[in-house]
Amino acid sequence: MRIDRALKPLLFCTPSSSSSSSSSSLLFVYFWVWFCWRWERSAMAATLLSALLVEILIPVAALIGMVFALIQWFLVSRVSVGGGQASINNGYDQSLLDDEEGYDDAEAVALCAEIQNAISEGAESFLITEYQYLGIFMAVFSVFIFLFLGSVGGFSTKWVSCKANPSELCAPPLANALFSTVAFILGALTSTLSGYLGMKIATYANARTTLEARKGVGEAFIVAFRAGSVMGFLLAANGLIVLFIAIVLFKLYYGNDWTGLYESIAGYGLGGSSVALFGRVGGGIYTKAADVGADLVGKVERNIPEDDPRNPAVIADNVGDNVGDIAGMGADLFGSFAESSCAALVVSSISSFGADRDFVAMSFPLLISSAGIVVCLITTIFATDLFVIKSVKEIEPSLKRQLVISTVLMTLAIAAVCYLALPSTFTINVVGHQPKVVKNWKLFFCVGSGLWAGLIIGYTTEYFTSNAYQPVRDVADSCRTGAATNVIFGLALGYKSVIIPVLAIAVAIFLSFSLAAMYGIAVAALGMLSTLATGLAIDAYGPISDNAGGIAEMAGMPHKVRERTDALDAAGNTTAAIGKGFAIGSAALVSLALFGAFVSRAGIAVVDVIQPKEFVGLIVGAMLPYWFSAMTMKSVGKAALAMVEEVRRQFNTIPGLMEGTVKPDYKRCVKISTDASLREMIPPGALVMLTPLIVGTLFGSSTLAGLLAGALVSGVQIAISASNTGGAWDNAKKYIEAGASDHARSLGPKGSDAHKAAVIGDTVGDPLKDTSGPSLNILIKLMAVESLVFAPFFAAHGGIFFKWLNI
Amino acid sequence: MRIDRALKPLLFCTPSSSSSSSSSSLLFVYFWVWFCWRWERSAMAATLLSALLVEILIPVAALIGMVFALIQWFLVSRVSVGGGQASINNGYDQSLLDDEEGYDDAEAVALCAEIQNAISEGAESFLITEYQYLGIFMAVFSVFIFLFLGSVGGFSTKWVSCKANPSELCAPPLANALFSTVAFILGALTSTLSGYLGMKIATYANARTTLEARKGVGEAFIVAFRAGSVMGFLLAANGLIVLFIAIVLFKLYYGNDWTGLYESIAGYGLGGSSVALFGRVGGGIYTKAADVGADLVGKVERNIPEDDPRNPAVIADNVGDNVGDIAGMGADLFGSFAESSCAALVVSSISSFGADRDFVAMSFPLLISSAGIVVCLITTIFATDLFVIKSVKEIEPSLKRQLVISTVLMTLAIAAVCYLALPSTFTINVVGHQPKVVKNWKLFFCVGSGLWAGLIIGYTTEYFTSNAYQPVRDVADSCRTGAATNVIFGLALGYKSVIIPVLAIAVAIFLSFSLAAMYGIAVAALGMLSTLATGLAIDAYGPISDNAGGIAEMAGMPHKVRERTDALDAAGNTTAAIGKGFAIGSAALVSLALFGAFVSRAGIAVVDVIQPKEFVGLIVGAMLPYWFSAMTMKSVGKAALAMVEEVRRQFNTIPGLMEGTVKPDYKRCVKISTDASLREMIPPGALVMLTPLIVGTLFGSSTLAGLLAGALVSGVQIAISASNTGGAWDNAKKYIEAGASDHARSLGPKGSDAHKAAVIGDTVGDPLKDTSGPSLNILIKLMAVESLVFAPFFAAHGGIFFKWLNI
Repeated sequence: MRIDRALKPLLFCTPSSSSSSSSSSLLFVYFWVWFCWRWERSAMAATLLSALLVEILIPVAALIGMVFALIQWFLVSRVSVGGGQASINNGYDQSLLDDEEGYDDAEAVALCAEIQNAISEGAESFLITEYQYLGIFMAVFSVFIFLFLGSVGGFSTKWVSCKANPSELCAPPLANALFSTVAFILGALTSTLSGYLGMKIATYANARTTLEARKGVGEAFIVAFRAGSVMGFLLAANGLIVLFIAIVLFKLYYGNDWTGLYESIAGYGLGGSSVALFGRVGGGIYTKAADVGADLVGKVERNIPEDDPRNPAVIADNVGDNVGDIAGMGADLFGSFAESSCAALVVSSISSFGADRDFVAMSFPLLISSAGIVVCLITTIFATDLFVIKSVKEIEPSLKRQLVISTVLMTLAIAAVCYLALPSTFTINVVGHQPKVVKNWKLFFCVGSGLWAGLIIGYTTEYFTSNAYQPVRDVADSCRTGAATNVIFGLALGYKSVIIPVLAIAVAIFLSFSLAAMYGIAVAALGMLSTLATGLAIDAYGPISDNAGGIAEMAGMPHKVRERTDALDAAGNTTAAIGKGFAIGSAALVSLALFGAFVSRAGIAVVDVIQPKEFVGLIVGAMLPYWFSAMTMKSVGKAALAMVEEVRRQFNTIPGLMEGTVKPDYKRCVKISTDASLREMIPPGALVMLTPLIVGTLFGSSTLAGLLAGALVSGVQIAISASNTGGAWDNAKKYIEAGASDHARSLGPKGSDAHKAAVIGDTVGDPLKDTSGPSLNILIKLMAVESLVFAPFFAAHGGIFFKWLNI
Repeated sequence: MRIDRALKPLLFCTPSSSSSSSSSSLLFVYFWVWFCWRWERSAMAATLLSALLVEILIPVAALIGMVFALIQWFLVSRVSVGGGQASINNGYDQSLLDDEEGYDDAEAVALCAEIQNAISEGAESFLITEYQYLGIFMAVFSVFIFLFLGSVGGFSTKWVSCKANPSELCAPPLANALFSTVAFILGALTSTLSGYLGMKIATYANARTTLEARKGVGEAFIVAFRAGSVMGFLLAANGLIVLFIAIVLFKLYYGNDWTGLYESIAGYGLGGSSVALFGRVGGGIYTKAADVGADLVGKVERNIPEDDPRNPAVIADNVGDNVGDIAGMGADLFGSFAESSCAALVVSSISSFGADRDFVAMSFPLLISSAGIVVCLITTIFATDLFVIKSVKEIEPSLKRQLVISTVLMTLAIAAVCYLALPSTFTINVVGHQPKVVKNWKLFFCVGSGLWAGLIIGYTTEYFTSNAYQPVRDVADSCRTGAATNVIFGLALGYKSVIIPVLAIAVAIFLSFSLAAMYGIAVAALGMLSTLATGLAIDAYGPISDNAGGIAEMAGMPHKVRERTDALDAAGNTTAAIGKGFAIGSAALVSLALFGAFVSRAGIAVVDVIQPKEFVGLIVGAMLPYWFSAMTMKSVGKAALAMVEEVRRQFNTIPGLMEGTVKPDYKRCVKISTDASLREMIPPGALVMLTPLIVGTLFGSSTLAGLLAGALVSGVQIAISASNTGGAWDNAKKYIEAGASDHARSLGPKGSDAHKAAVIGDTVGDPLKDTSGPSLNILIKLMAVESLVFAPFFAAHGGIFFKWLNI
């Protein structure tokens, strides 16, 4: 039977053969589908690459990414935790042990393993609970998607004549509803998997980083960075291969209806971002409730160090880093990748690529991402093998070098892909306007502008959040006069840090918009995300180092080890801010691309803000990020208060806790964070998910278009300023603590008035940089992709309030 | 000669008789002009009101306002300061004196007079210096306006055929340049005068309020409120009469070219807002540098009460209230009034009112303002004479009643004006679209929607900033866990407080936009500002009470007096926030109206944000409020640091200062505030003034239109959240200090950890609520009115960068 199918693909690849395959092996399905496609395609390629090569290159690139990730994982796993004294003791400097009195290395290592276990279990149990909630949401929302989209054509199952070309047949709306729902579920599952795998590797590598810090800062850095790469490459490769397989499979049903095919694929982006929303918000509340709660009692009231094992909230705090900064961030960036790919595909499917059935050119977005995986692989080798970190000062330059190397290499790769995969001239359709004629070299500038804007955003973020530069030092200096000036200076810094990133985004938008309309924007977003694997590796490195420091402190590691992990962590704050900068920059481009795809799909020719419907949408849209931030910040505040009460209670009622003779009840704190985050993620989630549906249904597509534009331009600013403000406060505090210069020493040491003021700033910054700020990315992306998916419904049934008013 | 002119007005009222009058008396000019006009007008009035009546009603309303202001001033002046024991001692409760040991009333009164003098002198000297800077700026900018606008027609002095109706003659561009410049100067002078008069009456009434507080809270309230009304009525009346006279005088030259006439009049708005910008920013930096500096050393380090005379920055702090909150606020709201009137006039001059030469209908905006003066007069009598305040609890309800009464009465007045002054049907021209046919009753809903949106904003602001409600109490409660949670809760509160005002504005915009296009928006703004006199009175009451409290503290007044002034001040924080809410709400409507007038004048039919030029403008525009806020907040921070150093120096080096035996050097602190504010107001001022010029010149009108829309929708949000956050923190602190409930007492008393945390929040809020937040109103208005004035230049010569790029 299988052989029969493989030999007669043409028969089974027509729209009528839409029955799902019963084959048990995914690999087989893939090969079969590929074969089937090859058969079907004609040889009229206008591009230098052949379709065959494209169908090989994309999965091969994904495979390379996965293999590379597995190699990195293997290298990380060679650091043994708790595997007997012999294996763990090799290589580090024995003299370290002699420095600290009463330090028992074996005991510390055993403790490391124990703590790692506790963190890993906590993170896993939280994620599993979160995913249960998400499962329910996904099920409900899937039904929504199916019903809303199915209702467009009255749930008809008949193929209809296409709008663009009435002589061709297009899939029935019910099929679009079904496939959109399937794509949504696929996106959600891939996003979930990305977050989960990231958490797994992060909690696998944190104690290993601590142990390697006994050998030296370079060794520890490599472990943390390799672990970050595992996440980066797995995510990039997974996202790519699932999308590709989905396209190939959907194609079996859709046949020549490429518009229907790629519009349904947009559900993939929606699924990815929906999971990301709850991941970011839930994880963000979790991590900051624990962090703020732990700091307020531990550091401020009890004067015990960060990550002290006596603090009952310390395990929750470390779990939080993994579920918030790792799983949340992974889901977020996966969402961006999926959405920008989908936006590009939707726009090009209704343009000449789609009309000409030019599969190679259609696959341009996927080829860019494939090239990105290879480029990032080479880039990673620079950090892990070619330049070895020897001292603390080399950490930040090394990470920055990653950005530069990946950007330069990627620029060459983009040129190659543009040359090979695109016809020399093609057209992009723009609703209500003349189609835009584009030459292939113009797309090079579109993708490149996004890529380089990303680098500029990265560098700017580093300048404003690293304590190697003046801005953070000014903030630290303002702690002299207390917490109030620290907060004022920090807020001002965040506001100021918006200028250059927004200008960079604006230039990229203008360039790519002018050169290739909305398709240009979509590929510019892809350009910024093309080095995703490296960006994620740099970003994930931060929380892993943060955890490593926590574990070192809790396990009672020698002072030098803690110094090294602290240095890794300080660099991690900056890289985390850089990662957030990328995330928000790409979110801006992605949302705009989705916005463009939405207006195309909804058939809107003009979004004229000197019309009442659009302007009202614009101003209300600009308000939404504030509403959303108010919710998330208040949630963190409330959860932190509950945590503070619990931590205080334990200190007050558990005898011997403060002396370190009795262990605190970590689990209650984990439970408080878990419950709070699951409860509190619902209202902001509902705000984001329901707003486009309500506005589109009641007020129609024009108002919704205004709303999306408003949310986009306003949300970008708050998100950037919030994440940079938080990063700067954190590093201002670390600057005072490290005391690496005369100026820093004049503000310190730990416990001085200036340091206390700095701790207050750091605490205020926590929800800004890890909850409300980064969640805003998702707000703007998700509303846009949701609008895109539901566009046919709004076009058919939307605006009932205005219709009722007869406006 | 004069009689001759009066008898032959027709001869002198034609365009050719444009020579300026040599008459020495303004009053005479006015009557002559009026007479001249009467003669000219035909009797074909389509409205129920005759032109004659309009020409009488407007100046009469202004006169009534002025007379009423003078009466209030007279009533305030009856409280004697330092006029001998006999006159000041009458009426207050002698038993008060017995309460406090060693209190010498005569000495305290003398001290009051002395302090009042010091504050008044400080404020006057600062304003005079500021006005000198402003004078230079005005002179330079006048030349700019003249050259830019003159260049449009190559400085030709020939009358040209009109665009709208080529059979008619329109004034030469050079004349438009000249009259725009004159209008600009007029607006600037009126704004300056408004601010200055406000400062004068406020520094006149502050000590008087203190002295009346000896009698009771009601008496003190009346003085402060009457003084506020003086400012409110003077400002409303001045703004109206100067604008009216300018129109009448300009008409002498322009004759039938109403479009040219009213477009030139727009310079009046630009002048008003330019002064307001520097007033708000300069005054804002002044007041908060002093306030933050005084608090940081006095309250936090030295643990001495607010306004303690030992604090060297205390005089500067009190001066700041007058130059920032009074003069700055006055100039700001005058600017809004002038701009919304101008926007309405520009739009209607190119619509049927202008085409039909219907002077009565053209004067609709001025008639609304005239009616507003009368309504506010009646409203004020309710507060000063009908309901007498007897206890502290009645203050806030009384102020709120003012809002309700003025809104209800104004609604009736609007109906009357719409009925009397408008033709039953007319048309509003919309560039690139069909003219909009409007019935007169529709305008009632436009104006009314603005008015009622103002009330909703006022009530919402009160809810979020008064410590009578839950939000502020939650913020106060969060002080339990320290400053960090206080800041987090405060920021969240500010974000949340944006929702309802923005929705209210959105509904008003939608309604008025749908009913009467951009004219609807302009009159909605006027509706919100129609109760300006009352709004300003309520607003100015705040800083006067604040000063009164300061004077009571410094003069060593009995405890009960200070309690009363504290209660007045707490209500003042709320009313100040309400005032800021009005200011920003009206600014949003005004900017949109100006934006509409700008696109009309620039001939832009569509501002399509899915075009690259417009979208880039939109996102960069949304960034500008952040850039601006970064500048102003950093300025306050820097100036406050300098102030802290000086205050510390004085405490450390002046022996006997802490013991109260030696006076501090107040003047050095005043000088620091003065220098800092004058130096620091230039960069943000330049940002606002230059951005529209640069963007319009380099990138053209379309990008500028996008920029204005972006700045508007983003600026509104930050402005509202900043001012409410600050107000809430201030009142959370006052809530703990007052200890009026069990909950409040559990957080207090003064000096407790929770109170210290509250003080930090209050200090952070100072620059937010008094510098960066309210300055943003002006940012969005000023950029819009500047674009409007320079629109012909941008249309003729703008966009040179894109022209060079050939895009």
